[in-house]
Amino acid sequence: MEADLIRELSLILAGTPSTGVLAGIGDDAALLSAPKARNILVTTDSQRENVHFRWDWTDPVSVGYRLVAVNVSDIASKGGTPWTGVIAVGLPPDYDPEVLRGVYRGIAEACREYGCSLVGGDLSRDPGRWNFVMTLLGTAPEGVFPSRSGLSEGDALYLLGRPGRARAGFLSLARGVTSEALEPARRAFRRPRALLSEGQALARRPEVVATIDSSDGLERSLSELSLASRKSVRVESLPVTEEVRNWSALLGEDPETLVWTGGEDYDILLGVRKEGEESFLHWVRTELLKGSPEKIHYVGRAVKAGKPAVRFSDGSLKKIKGRGFDHTVS
Amino acid sequence: MEADLIRELSLILAGTPSTGVLAGIGDDAALLSAPKARNILVTTDSQRENVHFRWDWTDPVSVGYRLVAVNVSDIASKGGTPWTGVIAVGLPPDYDPEVLRGVYRGIAEACREYGCSLVGGDLSRDPGRWNFVMTLLGTAPEGVFPSRSGLSEGDALYLLGRPGRARAGFLSLARGVTSEALEPARRAFRRPRALLSEGQALARRPEVVATIDSSDGLERSLSELSLASRKSVRVESLPVTEEVRNWSALLGEDPETLVWTGGEDYDILLGVRKEGEESFLHWVRTELLKGSPEKIHYVGRAVKAGKPAVRFSDGSLKKIKGRGFDHTVS
Repeated sequence: MEADLIRELSLILAGTPSTGVLAGIGDDAALLSAPKARNILVTTDSQRENVHFRWDWTDPVSVGYRLVAVNVSDIASKGGTPWTGVIAVGLPPDYDPEVLRGVYRGIAEACREYGCSLVGGDLSRDPGRWNFVMTLLGTAPEGVFPSRSGLSEGDALYLLGRPGRARAGFLSLARGVTSEALEPARRAFRRPRALLSEGQALARRPEVVATIDSSDGLERSLSELSLASRKSVRVESLPVTEEVRNWSALLGEDPETLVWTGGEDYDILLGVRKEGEESFLHWVRTELLKGSPEKIHYVGRAVKAGKPAVRFSDGSLKKIKGRGFDHTVS
Repeated sequence: MEADLIRELSLILAGTPSTGVLAGIGDDAALLSAPKARNILVTTDSQRENVHFRWDWTDPVSVGYRLVAVNVSDIASKGGTPWTGVIAVGLPPDYDPEVLRGVYRGIAEACREYGCSLVGGDLSRDPGRWNFVMTLLGTAPEGVFPSRSGLSEGDALYLLGRPGRARAGFLSLARGVTSEALEPARRAFRRPRALLSEGQALARRPEVVATIDSSDGLERSLSELSLASRKSVRVESLPVTEEVRNWSALLGEDPETLVWTGGEDYDILLGVRKEGEESFLHWVRTELLKGSPEKIHYVGRAVKAGKPAVRFSDGSLKKIKGRGFDHTVS
């Protein structure tokens, strides 16, 4: 089944990069030529209808673009270069082939933008709604892998990006707040950008000891770094921009909550060694972000070894249990 | 969310192979050390509730085992060695964590059996039913890749395996035919085996010019080989075993139909060059299948270039359109 469709999808992907691809779509497995880089990164991420997106909030091209971007973001946060991937699609019982074509147009667009290819896939009926799973390979130079577990006492925490945008966009769509001023937020939600060149440059700085893509929001990302590194972190500043303050007013939301729990911005949260922090910041401001809309925000500091926890500047403490916060502790 | 669960799943996977894994589950991306083999294979395959399996027909451990086995089969049919993979899980609204644990026990069992590892994943709510997508990497020695497009005129077609078993098992479960004699068929359906060592040995034989894993049945697999190679194929013999004949009688089914359209046996269909066919067969019988329950079956021959079609020995012809048969043509 879906014979002509598979051919059509392959045609939509024509012209996307093909580095190291010896045999692509159309066989039991794709054949790749191992990269010169010694290290390979692998990540997988999904986009599911009515979980990650709704068709009345977005369009097929954006869903395809987003699927690739969120995977690229994981590779980017580890300093890698996206290489090639595969996509498994769950087709709902009443699926419209034109939607699938649109999604693949978005996939092709993102593959061209981020320099990666698609070498295989799986189309299958699913009794539920549309779901898309991408697995993306990347390459990384030897010795470069800023893990989640690299935080030491005293390390500073910075966030590179524009937190709260996607959440504002999501709320705008979910609540039907159609204000034109929120359009950049809606776009940030529909079509997140991955901080690829930024992530690559950051991972190569010796002062950067830990990174995580902030896809699940600042709260979750800090929690994950704290857990993996087994260090408490102290939050000293929430990066609330003027833009987010304005949007929050339109949405009747607390801007700090938007930034703290928002997520889906695909920013990069990083731990920076105290020694060299100043010259690192100088480099970020004068070179990395020259002419870029992204911002670097100081968030706080890893304060001590022991039980993972986040302490706020007002003195309140949140212990971290599992991958979430135990909100009963103050 | 699912914090303790992720930790539990990682524990279930402890002790599975870890070749080339520098950083596994628990970061934005896994870090692998590029293999010595120049070539890397990539495949992806899904298992979806009420499409590929039903809980009243199977158990969680078997679903996990099957997910890995069907991916390994794709690597095996190209002569590769399974290496490492990632799994994305769609969790239904009412999911039972114990089911997930069972699936991971099956995954771990198959990873140990086939010598591969799991280095990442994605757990996400899904508004539908359980779905599992695995992407598996494999390695292959340079110069070894028997593609689907390698058939030339005169090449013989052989099937290695036991076609019709899984279909008989499926029908037994679907129709509630509980006869004890059908238990091996039910097991073949629930827990397919991948012909790993066989696929690896076959791909290295110079006479083997094309291969495909017969997951979609003999009809579809022949159709795919014919299409990719742009050769008509003539079917001269359907590999109906005594076992399948007996099961068909119990199920009130035509045994030839079972074998022709069945699928899910994960056998290997191969094209063999006419020159050397005899010595190849001798090798298969005396070395490859020595003491093995698998059988090699002669199916037919690639007869001419041109439009893909399958001609039967009774003279009837099926033209192949797209990836299916056009049954209106005789």
